Amino acid sequence: MRLVRFGEPGAEKPGLIDEENRIRDLSGEIDDIGGAVLSRHGLEKLRALDPKSLPKADPSHRLGPPVAGIRNFIAVGRNYAEHAAETGSETPSEPLLFNKAVSCIAGPRDGFAIPNGATKVDWEVEVAIVIGERCYQVSKDEAMNYVAGFCLCNDVSERTWQKERGGQWLKGKSAPGFGPLGPWLVTRDEIENPAALELWLDVNGQRMQTGTTADMIFDFATIVSYTSEFLALEPGDVITTGTPAGVGAGMKPPVFLKAGDIVTLGNAHLGEQRQVVSSPAE
Amino acid sequence: MRLVRFGEPGAEKPGLIDEENRIRDLSGEIDDIGGAVLSRHGLEKLRALDPKSLPKADPSHRLGPPVAGIRNFIAVGRNYAEHAAETGSETPSEPLLFNKAVSCIAGPRDGFAIPNGATKVDWEVEVAIVIGERCYQVSKDEAMNYVAGFCLCNDVSERTWQKERGGQWLKGKSAPGFGPLGPWLVTRDEIENPAALELWLDVNGQRMQTGTTADMIFDFATIVSYTSEFLALEPGDVITTGTPAGVGAGMKPPVFLKAGDIVTLGNAHLGEQRQVVSSPAE
Repeated sequence: MRLVRFGEPGAEKPGLIDEENRIRDLSGEIDDIGGAVLSRHGLEKLRALDPKSLPKADPSHRLGPPVAGIRNFIAVGRNYAEHAAETGSETPSEPLLFNKAVSCIAGPRDGFAIPNGATKVDWEVEVAIVIGERCYQVSKDEAMNYVAGFCLCNDVSERTWQKERGGQWLKGKSAPGFGPLGPWLVTRDEIENPAALELWLDVNGQRMQTGTTADMIFDFATIVSYTSEFLALEPGDVITTGTPAGVGAGMKPPVFLKAGDIVTLGNAHLGEQRQVVSSPAE
Repeated sequence: MRLVRFGEPGAEKPGLIDEENRIRDLSGEIDDIGGAVLSRHGLEKLRALDPKSLPKADPSHRLGPPVAGIRNFIAVGRNYAEHAAETGSETPSEPLLFNKAVSCIAGPRDGFAIPNGATKVDWEVEVAIVIGERCYQVSKDEAMNYVAGFCLCNDVSERTWQKERGGQWLKGKSAPGFGPLGPWLVTRDEIENPAALELWLDVNGQRMQTGTTADMIFDFATIVSYTSEFLALEPGDVITTGTPAGVGAGMKPPVFLKAGDIVTLGNAHLGEQRQVVSSPAE
C-alpha cells in the first residue's frame, strides 16, 4: 500500500493511493496514519479494504508528511562511502546517529525558507524507515518485522550550524521545513528489494545526486537493530538512512541553496518530492 | 501552580497540587497537561479555578511525567563550569545541544533498569524548561514569555555509549527510563528567581551533587533564545539545562550505578525524585 495524509497542515486526513494513482479517503476507517495503524495487524486491516469502496479525494489536495505524530526523528550520518569521502570524513565503523527536531517535518512539496543567519543550506536525498511497532534491543534478524515501510526524505542541512557551532549536528538539521517526508509511506511488502532503491536529486533541473541503497554501509535491518540497542523505537518513529554522494558541500567549489531554487528528488517506488526554496521570513 | 499527571503509564490524568500538597483532579477541566493548556492563556484559565472546587485524587497514585506529548527533548551539555572541568572538557563558548529520545521519558519515581550491555550508567540532576508556546528565532528578552515553567530532570547517561560509540551523544542518553521528569511542572510565576535554584542528588543516601542555577554558564533565557535560532520550539517541548559537578564519571575512581542503587534528587521549589535502579530486563 501507498499511504498518504492529505489536507492543510495540522488537519490532514488519512488516505491511500489506488492503482490509478488517485487518493482514496481513509478517514471513515481510521483516524490517522500513526500509532497502532502502523502495526502488522493495523496494516493488515487496511489491506483487507477494497480501495474502490473508499471515497475519492480531490487530487489537488496538499500532501502532508505521510506519518502523524512522529516523536523520534533520527538520522544516520555518512552511510554511503562516497558521501563520507566527499565531506572529507572517514567511513564510520558503526552507525553514526543524530536527531532532526520533529518541528522540521514537512510535506513533500511544502518547500522551505533559508533561515535567518543561514549561509550553507544543502540537500540530501534519503530513504527513511517508518517504525510500525515498539522495539528495543532487537536482533538484526527480527528488526524488519518492526518496520511499517519506507518513505522519501530530504535531510536538508545547514553546514555551518551542523559542524561549526558546538559539536552535535542537531543545530544544522532542524529548521522549519528541513524534513520533507513523503509523498507516500510505502509499506514494506511493496518493496521487493529494499537494497536496490535508486535515488536521484536535481536542483533547478540539474542532476546533483544519484545513488542506490545497495551502496549503504549499514543496511536497513542493521540500522533498526543497532538503534534499538540504545533506545526504544516506537510506532511512527522515523529513521532516515543517509545520503549518497553529490551534496552541495562536496562540490568544488561548494554550492548551496538560495531563494528561488527548486529541489526535486525521487525514487521509482517511493515517489517524488519538490521544494521551492524561499527567502527568510521577516 | 504545580501541575501533575497522575495514574498509570499512558493513562495519566491531569491534576494540580493544592496548598495542602494534595492532588486535585483537573480532568473535568482539561484533557491533559500539554499543547494549548501550556500557553499563557491556557495557564491563566487554570489559575482562575478554585483548587478547592476540584475533586481530590487518591494521594497514592503514581505520578507520570508532568507534560504530555513531549516531541522535542533537548538537553544542554557542559553548562556548569565545574562539571565541564570534571569531565575533562573545556567550557563551551556557545550552548552545546543534544537530544534525548522521547521514549526515555518517565515519571519521577518510575526507576530504570541498567540496559543490557551498559557498564557506565551515571546520574545528572538538572532543571528542565517546559516550552509553553511556539517560538522560532526569538530574542533573549522575549524568550521567557514562551516558557510555561520548570521541572526537575535526571539526565541519566551511559558514558561509553555517549562518548565512545560514534560521535553524537543521543546513544548514551536515551534508554528506557533515562529521562525522569517531575514530580511537578512548576509554572514560571511560582519561581521568584530561576537563577537561584539549589539542586542536590544522592545515591543510596550519600550526597553526590550540589549546585545552583546561579552557576549556569548560559541562563534559561539564553538557552531558549539560542535553541530557537536553529529550530522551532513547540508547546510541551522540554529543554533540560545541564548538570552541576558531582557525576559518577567525574569521581576518582569513577563510580557508576548498579542494580539496587537508589537515586534521589531535588530542589525546594521543584520537588523530589526517587529512582530504584533495577537489573536489565531479560
